[in-house]
Amino acid sequence: MIKRLLCLALGAGVVLGLLILRVNTMTQEMSAGDLRINAHRLEQHILGLAEFGKNEKGGLDRVAYSDADIRSRKYLMSLMKDAGLSVRVDEAGNIIGHREGQNPELPPIMFGSHSDTVPNGGKYDGALGVLGAIECAHILQENAIATRHPLEVIVFTDEEGGLVGSRAMTGTLTLDALDVVSHSGKTVREGIRALEGDPENLSKVIRQKGNIKAFLEIHIEQGRILETKGIDIGVVEGIVGISWWDVTIEGFANHAGTTPMDMRQDAMLAAAHLVVAVNRVVTGVPGRQVGTVGRIHAEPGAPNVIPGRVVMSLELRDLSSEKIQSLFEKIQEEARQISRETDTRISFTGIDAMALPAPTDPAIRRHIAASAEELGLSTLFMPSGAGHDAQDMARIAPTGMIFIPSVGGISHSPKEFSRTEDMVNGVNVLLHSILRIDRD
Amino acid sequence: MIKRLLCLALGAGVVLGLLILRVNTMTQEMSAGDLRINAHRLEQHILGLAEFGKNEKGGLDRVAYSDADIRSRKYLMSLMKDAGLSVRVDEAGNIIGHREGQNPELPPIMFGSHSDTVPNGGKYDGALGVLGAIECAHILQENAIATRHPLEVIVFTDEEGGLVGSRAMTGTLTLDALDVVSHSGKTVREGIRALEGDPENLSKVIRQKGNIKAFLEIHIEQGRILETKGIDIGVVEGIVGISWWDVTIEGFANHAGTTPMDMRQDAMLAAAHLVVAVNRVVTGVPGRQVGTVGRIHAEPGAPNVIPGRVVMSLELRDLSSEKIQSLFEKIQEEARQISRETDTRISFTGIDAMALPAPTDPAIRRHIAASAEELGLSTLFMPSGAGHDAQDMARIAPTGMIFIPSVGGISHSPKEFSRTEDMVNGVNVLLHSILRIDRD
Repeated sequence: MIKRLLCLALGAGVVLGLLILRVNTMTQEMSAGDLRINAHRLEQHILGLAEFGKNEKGGLDRVAYSDADIRSRKYLMSLMKDAGLSVRVDEAGNIIGHREGQNPELPPIMFGSHSDTVPNGGKYDGALGVLGAIECAHILQENAIATRHPLEVIVFTDEEGGLVGSRAMTGTLTLDALDVVSHSGKTVREGIRALEGDPENLSKVIRQKGNIKAFLEIHIEQGRILETKGIDIGVVEGIVGISWWDVTIEGFANHAGTTPMDMRQDAMLAAAHLVVAVNRVVTGVPGRQVGTVGRIHAEPGAPNVIPGRVVMSLELRDLSSEKIQSLFEKIQEEARQISRETDTRISFTGIDAMALPAPTDPAIRRHIAASAEELGLSTLFMPSGAGHDAQDMARIAPTGMIFIPSVGGISHSPKEFSRTEDMVNGVNVLLHSILRIDRD
Repeated sequence: MIKRLLCLALGAGVVLGLLILRVNTMTQEMSAGDLRINAHRLEQHILGLAEFGKNEKGGLDRVAYSDADIRSRKYLMSLMKDAGLSVRVDEAGNIIGHREGQNPELPPIMFGSHSDTVPNGGKYDGALGVLGAIECAHILQENAIATRHPLEVIVFTDEEGGLVGSRAMTGTLTLDALDVVSHSGKTVREGIRALEGDPENLSKVIRQKGNIKAFLEIHIEQGRILETKGIDIGVVEGIVGISWWDVTIEGFANHAGTTPMDMRQDAMLAAAHLVVAVNRVVTGVPGRQVGTVGRIHAEPGAPNVIPGRVVMSLELRDLSSEKIQSLFEKIQEEARQISRETDTRISFTGIDAMALPAPTDPAIRRHIAASAEELGLSTLFMPSGAGHDAQDMARIAPTGMIFIPSVGGISHSPKEFSRTEDMVNGVNVLLHSILRIDRD
């Protein structure tokens, strides 16, 4: 009797289990295409996170490792638990929310961003990527949609201070980076400890190539291309490489009154010709490369003395290292010409390359574009001119990035703003991109 | 008997007196053309004065009102007495050495310069003008040469700090100038007191137009025109006027990575175009005008941010105010064009004009040139790009300036150097110019 009951129960259990599986699969099959995130909840969470570090100027002072950062992370972990994720903090202080996949053997699909801000930053940079990722997990959980791959929602440590969390994960964080004093006043090492990480054991967080199915990040554009062109979604082709030089122009400092125009070795005039030449070279070839002179210093710097020495910065960015190199060679050629014409010496000193170009994965770009199309959203393939955790992750995983419009292109400012509708569109694209990659 | 003797003595005295007068006049007539200054004494005095304020860098710290300045003035007064001058210090602290003329009714011929230096200055700027003037008086005295006009050798107070002595003499020293804290640490008012002047009674030193026959100043060129062209003597056509503006270029500060080249409002690019335009405008018309951008400041000044604001100086100098104005108008026109092309706003704020142009007197220029010619020296008519006490004196007296070559055009520096031969040539020209003006 007892045996029979047990057998019955077992049989019923098996049937029930199969049924649940079937319903699950059906739900996914039937509803996946129509699934939409909870726009209201996303908006509430954006506002909720923006309480942490709010300052009087309407900006956010939530620099990595600050009290505001630490408190906001507790808020994020509670949201992740609400979304059904099992949450841990890794040795680098990255918060990782795990959701099981149907096949635990498959590598995880990872998505997320960072929650720290620059001093007096905005509500959206990083925050959208984190809260959008949590929302994707939440809506899947609410709709009981299983994925084949495990999912990992990630909140990277200290993006603004130097991509600390993602660099730790890709094994590219240098030891001396730990001794840098961050905006919080703590060194990065002390900061990681404050986040309950373990800076002595960072090697434990390194992920090998192939161990992550894909990495996805949604972010505000931080430029105004999408807004200006009226496009909903930017499909990021890659994060541009950044090369940076100090340019020194040496002439001869002399009395501005007693030195005739034709006897001058005017470092300022040579510098001005070079700034104009940089612009001409960079805009003289097709493409979306940019070149900038943002800093200039003239010595002695008095109105009545011809500058004998000017030091200025030169920054070039492009998706292709070869193009950066070719632009730099053209600029050097122009500099030689200017040098001859102005009787000055011009030299370039390379500063440690800020970043190599990091192309995103073509297949993932296609998934993002297809998801957007299915949602009736317009897309533009574009580079990311700014750096992101995704540029590190692209070294070890097929990576994709989704941009949404930034009003006025403003970021790193209290004036940073993205419309809820645009955020919701972007997170829906993230959600469907995850599901497409999962089925891939 | 006594009466007879007295009559005889009187007669002999009259004859002797007439004889002395005749010899004197004969000496002047016979030897004036051949008269040369004492080169060795001039050189010794240059070296002697250079002991006051000598620093470890080989430069001179003999700023106005400093202990070194006060001690050097005692040295100068002793040299003046040796030269047969009766010496006094006026209310502005100017040292004036007087020599009687044959006709005390005639206005004096004044010549001199200043003895203060800039911090870490050189041995020749000012010093040559003062010591050359004393040497002229000395050689006239030694050779018993009388002049029709009284002579006044002058050492002006605080030239480097703002032409204090000459401005007092021309009535153009403003009251607030007395409260300026000089390099000595003393205010100008305290400084004048330290020189045994009387700052409360400066009006006593004012000379009216017509009360000075002529003012002459010999000075090192402070440029390298004479040296480069191999010319002995510069006949100064005038001291240029100086106009000075702050130029503000406003664009829009933006992320250097995320802002495409065609969406920028780059204040640095606009500033660079303007620096090039200033040079093009100033060199685009005949003449010896100069235009300089010596100071530049870009905000926010980071290599990865497109500058939103650049402030730079613009200085124009010429002998003609009209030409300065016409150049400025052309520069403004260029600025409007640049403003349109770069989507920036450019504005000019006039800073108190440093100085109006001060032409020298054509007759005195001719006397200087004729004296040089007689001495077998080559001359060049040229503007003075730097300011001098002569620019003030030109307001109240027919003024002339004599330049001698500066090696490398360097001044206001321990490296300032003029060859003894050039100095001797210049002082001989000064001497003969005085004699020519006296006969005029």
